[in-house]
Amino acid sequence: MTAPCTVACAQLALDVADPAATRERTCTAIADAFHSGANIIVVPELANSGYAFHDLHEARRAAEDTDGPTLRTWAQLAHDFSGVVIGGFAEQADDEALHNSVAIVTEDGVAGIYRKIHLWDRENDWFHPGSAMPPVVATRFGAVSTAVCYDVYFPEFTRAIALSGAELLAVPTNAPRRVPGSTTATPASGGFPTPIQLAIYATMAHQNGIYVAACDRAGEERGIEWIGASGVFSPDGWMLATPPAGYGTGTLFAQCRLADSRNKQRGNRNDLFADRRPEVYDHTTTKGTTHGR
Amino acid sequence: MTAPCTVACAQLALDVADPAATRERTCTAIADAFHSGANIIVVPELANSGYAFHDLHEARRAAEDTDGPTLRTWAQLAHDFSGVVIGGFAEQADDEALHNSVAIVTEDGVAGIYRKIHLWDRENDWFHPGSAMPPVVATRFGAVSTAVCYDVYFPEFTRAIALSGAELLAVPTNAPRRVPGSTTATPASGGFPTPIQLAIYATMAHQNGIYVAACDRAGEERGIEWIGASGVFSPDGWMLATPPAGYGTGTLFAQCRLADSRNKQRGNRNDLFADRRPEVYDHTTTKGTTHGR
Repeated sequence: MTAPCTVACAQLALDVADPAATRERTCTAIADAFHSGANIIVVPELANSGYAFHDLHEARRAAEDTDGPTLRTWAQLAHDFSGVVIGGFAEQADDEALHNSVAIVTEDGVAGIYRKIHLWDRENDWFHPGSAMPPVVATRFGAVSTAVCYDVYFPEFTRAIALSGAELLAVPTNAPRRVPGSTTATPASGGFPTPIQLAIYATMAHQNGIYVAACDRAGEERGIEWIGASGVFSPDGWMLATPPAGYGTGTLFAQCRLADSRNKQRGNRNDLFADRRPEVYDHTTTKGTTHGR
Repeated sequence: MTAPCTVACAQLALDVADPAATRERTCTAIADAFHSGANIIVVPELANSGYAFHDLHEARRAAEDTDGPTLRTWAQLAHDFSGVVIGGFAEQADDEALHNSVAIVTEDGVAGIYRKIHLWDRENDWFHPGSAMPPVVATRFGAVSTAVCYDVYFPEFTRAIALSGAELLAVPTNAPRRVPGSTTATPASGGFPTPIQLAIYATMAHQNGIYVAACDRAGEERGIEWIGASGVFSPDGWMLATPPAGYGTGTLFAQCRLADSRNKQRGNRNDLFADRRPEVYDHTTTKGTTHGR
């Protein structure tokens, strides 16, 4: 459980118009990363399908169940290399509903599925939001969990995952440069030399004392330009692996010791979790206070 | 309530060995910022006393009640310039307990007091932790609230303040470069060209859709080197005002329209607050899940 490991994020160019090629590209990147020595490999959100569907029918054609070819291939690779694959896929559930899901796959097969609970924009047109927290999966390298893209805008959600024991939070992502309906770019560089996503990941790691491995995508798809801001962050919020040059395609590698996440002590007398004051936060359900004390 | 305003952060060098001079320096900086056109002025944590007390007695000598000379001066300045002052001070409470407090002072006087609830390291030796959320104070420029330094490590806390209607979160801070008991610097620049504090502030603003005005201190005090990472951030997380050159002393100014914080909509179909799924997060109180679905 405490062995050091290599975490990789494969920042890929996906193509919703050609899901077969997209699946193939993702599986090849996973195999290549394993061959290069990675133990845990993260791939983007919807890595079996691409993102910008024209309609529900197109989404349905690309979706797979957890016994589909994509997860079977990921499971085979995880088995062959005694590793872990964490990646997004368009999921066709038993009840025919589609979900924007993540699979956590170990050498023993699919160990956990998370269905994205905060859907962004047109995702609502084809996906049903999930209704459960992501699993925290015990692997030979440590406890891993996941969140997807817009999910990281909800710090109470990622905090809850950390409190459940996650040591590495894998974040498959498709982050667009422009917010739908807006003519301005997302705040990718205002004052910050880096996309704001990287600030969010660093903060999430630092506040919770966990590793974060965010895997974004690169390039363009049906007019959407992707930010390409993958990164791996230490429990102190240090960026261990930075996005590929020019925020393009490429695979990042970082050496991690997931057990380091178990130490929440900071300095001599503080602890990131024990210092929480939930009994005080609860009082905020009364809104509109204008005077304190 | 919707008038544009100028928010200033006075990044000062404080000196715990000379509280009279420290108080004077803080009041002068406030007066200067008002003269320069600021409407809301934030000063650092413990701006009436300095930070690195030798012992409880020294802390007690520097502490004041809410009718003390420091808050009387801030109130006079706020009154004279029809402005707002938000700053940290060592507070002597009615029951003789000391608190690491923040006063929100308007033209009508002291409108709210917050007593820091997450104490860092040796603060525990002289201060009692507060037991209440910070007030959200309605000012002529918009709704303002506050959090102090280590408080921002608790995103569920700052989220709760935002949910209570704060449009500007003022963060008086004394951020040390090194964590006590550690021989390494805090993750001030690992991969990030900026101190991690700035990433935290940007994230807090971006996730909650609020303005953040963080006022740090500069220089050194009894062997503690301060990071000096003040900044003002828009509700999108853009850095509107950056730290002074070399992270030294200086006052930052940023034009803000606090009412912009009321719009939590992002893109065409999303809303930072309405999209929350607290009914799902609550389920995480069961720990140790290892399989999802």
